[in-house]
Amino acid sequence: MIKVAVLGYGTVGSGVVEVIESNNAEVSAKAGEEMHVSYILDLRDFPGDPYEDRVIHDFNVILNDPEVSVVCEVMGGVGAAYQFTKQLLEAGKSVCTSNKELVAKHGAELLEIARNKNCSYMFEASVGGGIPVIRPITKALTAEKIEKITAILNGTTNYILSKMEKEGAGYEETLKKAQELGYAERNPEADVEGHDACRKVAILSSLMTGKNVDAEKIYTEGITGISPADFDYARAAGMTIKLLATSEAVEDGRVLAMVAPALVSMGHPLAAVNDVYNGVFVKGNMLGDVMFYGRGAGKLPTASAVVSDVIDCARHIGRSSIICIWDREEAGLADVDESRKCFFVRAKASAREKAEEIFPGCRFVECGRAEDCGFMTAEMSEKEFKEKSSAMGDGILCRIRLA
Amino acid sequence: MIKVAVLGYGTVGSGVVEVIESNNAEVSAKAGEEMHVSYILDLRDFPGDPYEDRVIHDFNVILNDPEVSVVCEVMGGVGAAYQFTKQLLEAGKSVCTSNKELVAKHGAELLEIARNKNCSYMFEASVGGGIPVIRPITKALTAEKIEKITAILNGTTNYILSKMEKEGAGYEETLKKAQELGYAERNPEADVEGHDACRKVAILSSLMTGKNVDAEKIYTEGITGISPADFDYARAAGMTIKLLATSEAVEDGRVLAMVAPALVSMGHPLAAVNDVYNGVFVKGNMLGDVMFYGRGAGKLPTASAVVSDVIDCARHIGRSSIICIWDREEAGLADVDESRKCFFVRAKASAREKAEEIFPGCRFVECGRAEDCGFMTAEMSEKEFKEKSSAMGDGILCRIRLA
Repeated sequence: MIKVAVLGYGTVGSGVVEVIESNNAEVSAKAGEEMHVSYILDLRDFPGDPYEDRVIHDFNVILNDPEVSVVCEVMGGVGAAYQFTKQLLEAGKSVCTSNKELVAKHGAELLEIARNKNCSYMFEASVGGGIPVIRPITKALTAEKIEKITAILNGTTNYILSKMEKEGAGYEETLKKAQELGYAERNPEADVEGHDACRKVAILSSLMTGKNVDAEKIYTEGITGISPADFDYARAAGMTIKLLATSEAVEDGRVLAMVAPALVSMGHPLAAVNDVYNGVFVKGNMLGDVMFYGRGAGKLPTASAVVSDVIDCARHIGRSSIICIWDREEAGLADVDESRKCFFVRAKASAREKAEEIFPGCRFVECGRAEDCGFMTAEMSEKEFKEKSSAMGDGILCRIRLA
Repeated sequence: MIKVAVLGYGTVGSGVVEVIESNNAEVSAKAGEEMHVSYILDLRDFPGDPYEDRVIHDFNVILNDPEVSVVCEVMGGVGAAYQFTKQLLEAGKSVCTSNKELVAKHGAELLEIARNKNCSYMFEASVGGGIPVIRPITKALTAEKIEKITAILNGTTNYILSKMEKEGAGYEETLKKAQELGYAERNPEADVEGHDACRKVAILSSLMTGKNVDAEKIYTEGITGISPADFDYARAAGMTIKLLATSEAVEDGRVLAMVAPALVSMGHPLAAVNDVYNGVFVKGNMLGDVMFYGRGAGKLPTASAVVSDVIDCARHIGRSSIICIWDREEAGLADVDESRKCFFVRAKASAREKAEEIFPGCRFVECGRAEDCGFMTAEMSEKEFKEKSSAMGDGILCRIRLA
């Protein structure tokens, strides 16, 4: 029997217990042994809960039970979660988590401890919720040099942008609706400012390069500046707007990582990723493009991913099932200013002539709006674009990169 | 050092050698040891080929070399490939293959031998070419009960249908173009009649049920009857036409598997899978919908998938890395006649009144064609549809199921 402990009995934690219990036949068959949730650690009690007898408040019970071999850390945060995870791995117990903040911050260190102790630290659920992303990248695309990852990693912002596109509504109004429906938090900052996507792309970038990519150094822009007018122009150009998290291997082993809204052509598979869905588009040097698509969040999808990690650990008791390379050495990050792109610019109608002068060869998009004008620039570096923009004075209302 | 042999130096075989040599640093790092192609078995010689010194003609050299632990069978066919694979597995050597015909026909038996001999039989490349499909289903979605798979599994037919949709061209003309471009074989039967997709969905169905699904018993229809007129109606209804391979768990542990063209709503992610790309849409009971998308064929993508299997085997020398369940016991197949669907019907213009009578409540689609009419039926069983169709006499020109 595989004895599992769950740290944190919140949304994901209760989902983990539900998946292990509801799909017990499948889960146990795949694990090769019967799987059983022995402990649920939480500060609260849960009178009346079907698993209330397994709820405990003392972490040491789990740490000191030699029969517990796999632990799910679904508490979140980088305080107690970090301390507990470290102690468990040091004790040779495998840990599976959905805690992207902790993985982004201490992944390299925790993987190293796990390897040294012949156990595993696994985090499929930390990126893309229920979509298999980490495992395909680390265990399936193993014959590949991954050249670029382009991804929609945040369901809240994708829901807001999808609704704005379909309904022509404004950002604030759509955010409010998303909050009412439970798709956005009351304090939506981590999502709408791009921080959540940033942590996830830091994890993917670390796996892509094999070195540690610091989330805090990744250039990040949110979606709060996107307006219905931008969608009018996007539509007229056969495009839509998505919050893209990108990571690209550039020269000298460096990586160019970024989170920012981008115009995506309607023919691109990522344009069809709508509502709360996520999509991860990967370009390998041999296989070309692949995409993974599905629910990027939610209790049961996320729990399902955590349990798939538990099964993997259960099949590798006494040895590490880690195959990814993620060293503590810092990866070199390319300077965003040097990256080259085309830009969409929405400018005051009165600035049209000036724009033609400053951005020679730009292509204007006509969508029937008199109050402003919109155009696509030629490809240029971010630095060059900034210089040209400041030459435009206060004429520019919004600029969005082209994917 | 991991010594690898390659059986068959055709398109995929030469791709396998290229991937192992070009990405040797990545491949060896992931395998945990340096990987080296020791033998290439082929009946032909390859004078001037960079690897001509490794080409041999005697299979027994590979079988009897104790240092060869992993073999790639990329010969195709179910004759020699079957005999060789069996002998290799019996000798405890792992075999990785792209040979969907052999996997569909003898997968259960070969997996059983591999398990008994503590080696592996792996076939990621047999479905979806370079897209990780088999591994996500068997190793990532392990916490799931998979309820339904809906997939575009054949690049040739998807290319033809995509072109017909975009260019309004006829089937024969588009097939010819596909042949000129090398996207269709000179004898295109296996692709256009759906047999290739059928073998692939048989493999997926076996993995979904854990029992053996016989490809020859799966109801299969090709795309040769699809005309530009059908696309006119599809477009007017906000849909497109795809050759879908589906497999669904129904009551009593039986499975309903089918390959047939279907009308897919433009909002569905599979509608965005165009040209030679494949897409595999999986519905799990916990995680909902996920989709895997990418190049379903081609030398390097397919080879990349074979090599990912080789790496997996290399990490499990002396033990089986197989986690999937695929017993020799036959799975119960549901009778297609009993399955319920809506149908699109294109009928003679003169049959419109009769159609309204025989299919009460059907919705006509107007696309400006005078020579015929098109309508969607209410949901009904295949059997009921057949009866109603024959009551229409020769009035029906074409019928396509709705996805």
